[in-house]
Amino acid sequence: MLVVQKYGGSSVANAERIHRVARRVADVRSKGHQIVVTVSAMGDTTDDLVSLVKEITDSPTDREMDVILSTGEQVSIALLAMAIKELGESVISLTGAQAGIHTDSAHTKARINSIDTVRIKEELEQGKIVVVAGFQGIDQVNNNITTLGRGGSDTTAVALAIALKADLCEIYTDVDGVYTTDPRVVPEARKLAVISYEEMLELANLGAAVLHPRAVELAMKYKMPLHVRSSFNHNPGTVVREVEEMEKSLVVTGVVCDNNVAKIGLFNVMDKPGIAHTLFKALADEKINVDMIIQSAMRDERNDISFTCSKGDLKKALEVVEKLQTALGADGFTYGDGVAKVSIVGAGMVSNPGVAAEMFEALFREGINLEMISTSEIKVSCIIRAEDSVKAVAALHKKFNLAEQNGN
Amino acid sequence: MLVVQKYGGSSVANAERIHRVARRVADVRSKGHQIVVTVSAMGDTTDDLVSLVKEITDSPTDREMDVILSTGEQVSIALLAMAIKELGESVISLTGAQAGIHTDSAHTKARINSIDTVRIKEELEQGKIVVVAGFQGIDQVNNNITTLGRGGSDTTAVALAIALKADLCEIYTDVDGVYTTDPRVVPEARKLAVISYEEMLELANLGAAVLHPRAVELAMKYKMPLHVRSSFNHNPGTVVREVEEMEKSLVVTGVVCDNNVAKIGLFNVMDKPGIAHTLFKALADEKINVDMIIQSAMRDERNDISFTCSKGDLKKALEVVEKLQTALGADGFTYGDGVAKVSIVGAGMVSNPGVAAEMFEALFREGINLEMISTSEIKVSCIIRAEDSVKAVAALHKKFNLAEQNGN
Repeated sequence: MLVVQKYGGSSVANAERIHRVARRVADVRSKGHQIVVTVSAMGDTTDDLVSLVKEITDSPTDREMDVILSTGEQVSIALLAMAIKELGESVISLTGAQAGIHTDSAHTKARINSIDTVRIKEELEQGKIVVVAGFQGIDQVNNNITTLGRGGSDTTAVALAIALKADLCEIYTDVDGVYTTDPRVVPEARKLAVISYEEMLELANLGAAVLHPRAVELAMKYKMPLHVRSSFNHNPGTVVREVEEMEKSLVVTGVVCDNNVAKIGLFNVMDKPGIAHTLFKALADEKINVDMIIQSAMRDERNDISFTCSKGDLKKALEVVEKLQTALGADGFTYGDGVAKVSIVGAGMVSNPGVAAEMFEALFREGINLEMISTSEIKVSCIIRAEDSVKAVAALHKKFNLAEQNGN
Repeated sequence: MLVVQKYGGSSVANAERIHRVARRVADVRSKGHQIVVTVSAMGDTTDDLVSLVKEITDSPTDREMDVILSTGEQVSIALLAMAIKELGESVISLTGAQAGIHTDSAHTKARINSIDTVRIKEELEQGKIVVVAGFQGIDQVNNNITTLGRGGSDTTAVALAIALKADLCEIYTDVDGVYTTDPRVVPEARKLAVISYEEMLELANLGAAVLHPRAVELAMKYKMPLHVRSSFNHNPGTVVREVEEMEKSLVVTGVVCDNNVAKIGLFNVMDKPGIAHTLFKALADEKINVDMIIQSAMRDERNDISFTCSKGDLKKALEVVEKLQTALGADGFTYGDGVAKVSIVGAGMVSNPGVAAEMFEALFREGINLEMISTSEIKVSCIIRAEDSVKAVAALHKKFNLAEQNGN
């Protein structure tokens, strides 16, 4: 069997943890399996490198940023290889370039184009454990070092598993798997044994930090099953895979709450073509990621427009809105970051039209006011006051019997 | 003009110093010259990486050691490139691999086989300043990352200058140039304007840390002149170059003292073939670098053998000697690290046979006892008590009029 494993930054944050990962890897090898391991940079390494850059310049070039950031994983692959060697196993570390990970040239957020697996396969055939740097590659023009940006290491692992036709792709993290909701908020939260790609994608996009949506998308495209589990114990985790229609017994699979939300509302914007485009184009130009958008026709020829973004983008977004207020013909605007986004996700919603209404009812019974609502095929999200978020998550978890169901 | 510059770890130890180096580099470019810069890792980076490794294992594999050590220079080239960019110059950083620095596969102490300069030349022709990681390359078998070991960055600079047929190779360090002796010990010490490769080589081997002997050897072989100078001011430094016979007016060019010396003496070793070989082979097997060796026939069929090594190797050397004592037929042994090696160097000595005697006389007049003596064509070294070293250096500096001569 060929196994690909990925260990995140917290799993290799110090020498003791690296030794622990080494033992796990050696265990798999000793059972006769071939194994490719990909790792992130140790704990806070990336932050430390970014601080170093900030001492030099406020506007680093992306190419040089990648040269420096890629050293974080280069350190961790060498250390892990040394720790595995200590256990008597044959092992080799490979940088993104050495592992044949070819990307486009979009520095700091490159996409993997292809993986030339010749070198990895050679090393595997020689009986070696192969440790590959996550998060990095080289472009095909000039052998420039690239990094993959957010979710890069998860993506490296999934891409390696696909390219190598691995039998198993394990994503090790600091939690036990994917839960029906955050167990720190709702003690009754239940670990899911299985979840579909689509549901995982919604959960990941909603801020469940277990697995990056980009990696989920890639796995979904190539139907590569992922096993998400903890590097701190041997409990089974959650398998993310294709779920046949007939298995989709659960209407709602999970509840997620994202507190990193800010809300901006514009009053009485002119109701004419191009207004929304002007506003959201200007926000996009500033690289502000707008999440929910609500436009409601309140009076004749006048609309209210509300949208949400991350708290970190609020200041920039307000500058844009202030500048455009006259052009948009708005009477004024309001904003706040005391809000949260609570969402329910479930593949079964598609065929259960009443789910959104059940959610609103449950929140209403708790006296929680809904400030904004948005829905997709398998998700309903509501913006509520931040102070209501724990109460909301607990109520929804209970409402949809997530602690008890055995469907997944 | 094409200029190659090298900046050591202390010259790029922090953000402020990196900015200073950037300005120096940009100055050269603004005068219309092409420039290739090679840098070491920042200050203590290498030590920090070694400590990290020590937390993982006491016996790291050399290959993985190189993977991790090479990140030090990768960080400094990116930071320097960013700082140069801040000044409005066009610039690119290249790792050893990207710069085409091909080495043998002797990890942690690789030798440069060749430099494929295509990429560097391309970047130069596009008007860019090229920043190359010192100390590193790739081997030609597997694109494994290699490091060059001690003196690696100096060697990278000289090799780049040779391969690119540079007009000038400047080695920037934290001292003003090469002095007749250590100015911290003898205030009258004088900076040499010019020194021959041979003399520089002896001085470097004797522990004058300005320039690594390996880089001097390479420069000598290809007759590449080097300008050794400080990155902290704009004073002219010392030019290391071929010196014609007729110019060699100075009998003695410099005085060097090395305090990192330990001495071991064996009494009454058997005088038969193979004895010396047995001892020094065993020491070499333990990778102990033996410096001076003195064998003196004291009595019939019995010799005393003394040798020196670095203080760090003393413990290992004693273990070897203890193990071999019986096999060598020695009566016993003595050792000590309270000694120092004081040396005079000068190309003019070849034709001045009385120089060694003048040295001994000067030391005798100071009441300094000579424990061991060794000579080469252009060097005389004496082992003395460590507490006499300052007095010895001052006396020799004066004896050979080093503060006053204008020959160089």
